[in-house]
Amino acid sequence: MSLLENISKNIYSLDDTFIRQAKQRLDRLIKPTGSLGKIEDICMQLAGIYQSKEFDTSKKVIIAFAGDHGVYEEGVAPDPQNITQLQFPNFSKGLCGVGVLSKFVGADIVAVDVGINCDHKLDGVLDYKIRKGTSNMAKGPAMNRQEAIRCLEIGIEIAEECIEKGYKVIGIGEMGICNTTPSSAIISVICDCDPLDVTGIGAGLKKEKIQHKANTIRNAIELNKPNPEDAIDILSKVGGFEIGAMAGVILGCSANKIPVVLDGFISYAAALLAYKVNPKSREYMIASHSSAEPGTEKALEVIKLSPVLNMDMRLGEGSGAALAFNIIEAANYTYKNMATFDEVEWVDNSLR
Amino acid sequence: MSLLENISKNIYSLDDTFIRQAKQRLDRLIKPTGSLGKIEDICMQLAGIYQSKEFDTSKKVIIAFAGDHGVYEEGVAPDPQNITQLQFPNFSKGLCGVGVLSKFVGADIVAVDVGINCDHKLDGVLDYKIRKGTSNMAKGPAMNRQEAIRCLEIGIEIAEECIEKGYKVIGIGEMGICNTTPSSAIISVICDCDPLDVTGIGAGLKKEKIQHKANTIRNAIELNKPNPEDAIDILSKVGGFEIGAMAGVILGCSANKIPVVLDGFISYAAALLAYKVNPKSREYMIASHSSAEPGTEKALEVIKLSPVLNMDMRLGEGSGAALAFNIIEAANYTYKNMATFDEVEWVDNSLR
Repeated sequence: MSLLENISKNIYSLDDTFIRQAKQRLDRLIKPTGSLGKIEDICMQLAGIYQSKEFDTSKKVIIAFAGDHGVYEEGVAPDPQNITQLQFPNFSKGLCGVGVLSKFVGADIVAVDVGINCDHKLDGVLDYKIRKGTSNMAKGPAMNRQEAIRCLEIGIEIAEECIEKGYKVIGIGEMGICNTTPSSAIISVICDCDPLDVTGIGAGLKKEKIQHKANTIRNAIELNKPNPEDAIDILSKVGGFEIGAMAGVILGCSANKIPVVLDGFISYAAALLAYKVNPKSREYMIASHSSAEPGTEKALEVIKLSPVLNMDMRLGEGSGAALAFNIIEAANYTYKNMATFDEVEWVDNSLR
Repeated sequence: MSLLENISKNIYSLDDTFIRQAKQRLDRLIKPTGSLGKIEDICMQLAGIYQSKEFDTSKKVIIAFAGDHGVYEEGVAPDPQNITQLQFPNFSKGLCGVGVLSKFVGADIVAVDVGINCDHKLDGVLDYKIRKGTSNMAKGPAMNRQEAIRCLEIGIEIAEECIEKGYKVIGIGEMGICNTTPSSAIISVICDCDPLDVTGIGAGLKKEKIQHKANTIRNAIELNKPNPEDAIDILSKVGGFEIGAMAGVILGCSANKIPVVLDGFISYAAALLAYKVNPKSREYMIASHSSAEPGTEKALEVIKLSPVLNMDMRLGEGSGAALAFNIIEAANYTYKNMATFDEVEWVDNSLR
């Protein structure tokens, strides 16, 4: 059995016993039942994932992947392609958005090259390059099926290495000029909607070019005919290496019972792919923020997730996931440290 | 001139020079322009408020007020009224939701009794009691005009004391059994909408009682006829002592150029009152989270604020404001620590 098949077979629904135990504690805290909303949801989810009454969420990492895209040549992004290789080394140096936010929340960063269009090794970046960017999906499949499986498996491998090292919460991030284009394509195929409904400005495309970007995606889907029920087929035909690797991290976390924090738009595409590989993987996902890109609602509707943050961010990198680490730790801290009705000197327990 | 008049006259629009300076720095950070969304909005707002290029947001406090409500006797809340006096001392002890979340984010708490229905002094609570709860607004005005001014001025005084002590970010919180009822009344009057559209379950009212709660509010408005253009009239007729005091904090912060972080539903009512006293006060407000109560959207529409958190919380206390302190500090940290295009060794500056 391949690594991917093996991982996918080992993803189970969360353990109800521990979710119920967490709920019992939450209901004993000195507050009206359910009034802490997603703080309570997160604690119950973590209890179910970790299969434990108490858990430590302090050791956190963002796993970020970078790759380039053949479809770039269709003019779907405003920035030069070499920004991918210029910006990616700043991730682990703590200079860019996700670097700074990770420092703020006390998270580490692992940066992995899965397909940047350059020949040299990048500083502070792990080299798992599949090749120097995908092929242009407007002219044929972005990658072959073996490459699609490979990038999923890279994600699984890196996730398992991090879990081995003791990370208890994993967030996903990415860098890849024009990667909102394959992301919109994946979301369009899996959510069965017109590309125009899920295509936006990405990192800053001029609004008048959105129609062209959506047409490029529509043509690529018509040309390559990805099977909407087959995640690997979708990934190979209209995906990207870094998107596949992110989906791999989600699957790796799910099989190893570790919560995985989504970032923005690109990560929703990865989440949908992971969901298609095994729908139970969604139970391990925590949505960090609502991306400013259109298609956000459609994508999150399918995986039934509601982000904790509403920041109008559209930076990607893993920046939203890093910011949400703090909310997860706040939730855990609240769960652990709030007093219960039994502990306070109340005349009655009428708030119960 | 009274304290309230004096404060209100000293609330000015934010300083454009500093907002522009902050924007210049934000636009030089290594990211697409505007891609950090509300992180950038918050930094520009803080620069405008503090009138400074750099600022320190580490010294934070939640000012929480508690009061009881005559309208409680109409059966608009599921909990005994004495929960107010039982729970409020837990604020500064760090045992309840806001207490724990404040600890997590490194914020202090000042708890102030402005009208709890009890005779004894509460542990860890400042005594500014106006009287032991408002009158029943279903039978007449909740308070007289002098009392309304007094609770606004208490809020101003406490805010100024905290600012004097060096607090740079102030959040508002509250405790008062059944205080979603006067809050819905205030929101209904100021947003000019039917009480049923802005009335919810509060701390856990049975759904079949929402109609009764809304009818109680409708009757109180018809009986007392608050003038929708006069904040003090609205507060005196259908408000609450703690809601007025929270509005006072907002005004005090605005006049002293300190950002004020709203909490949930009750704080929206306070924000609307402050806005009615002086609309420029909204420029000093930061919305923390979207309350799960209906009426949230209508209230925030009027003051044109969009919360950073979407937690489905309905605890009140100041818990959402405390949680948002972290986002504000993350924003400031990002603003200070992200590299600029000039600082990184890029071949070109094409991302600009």
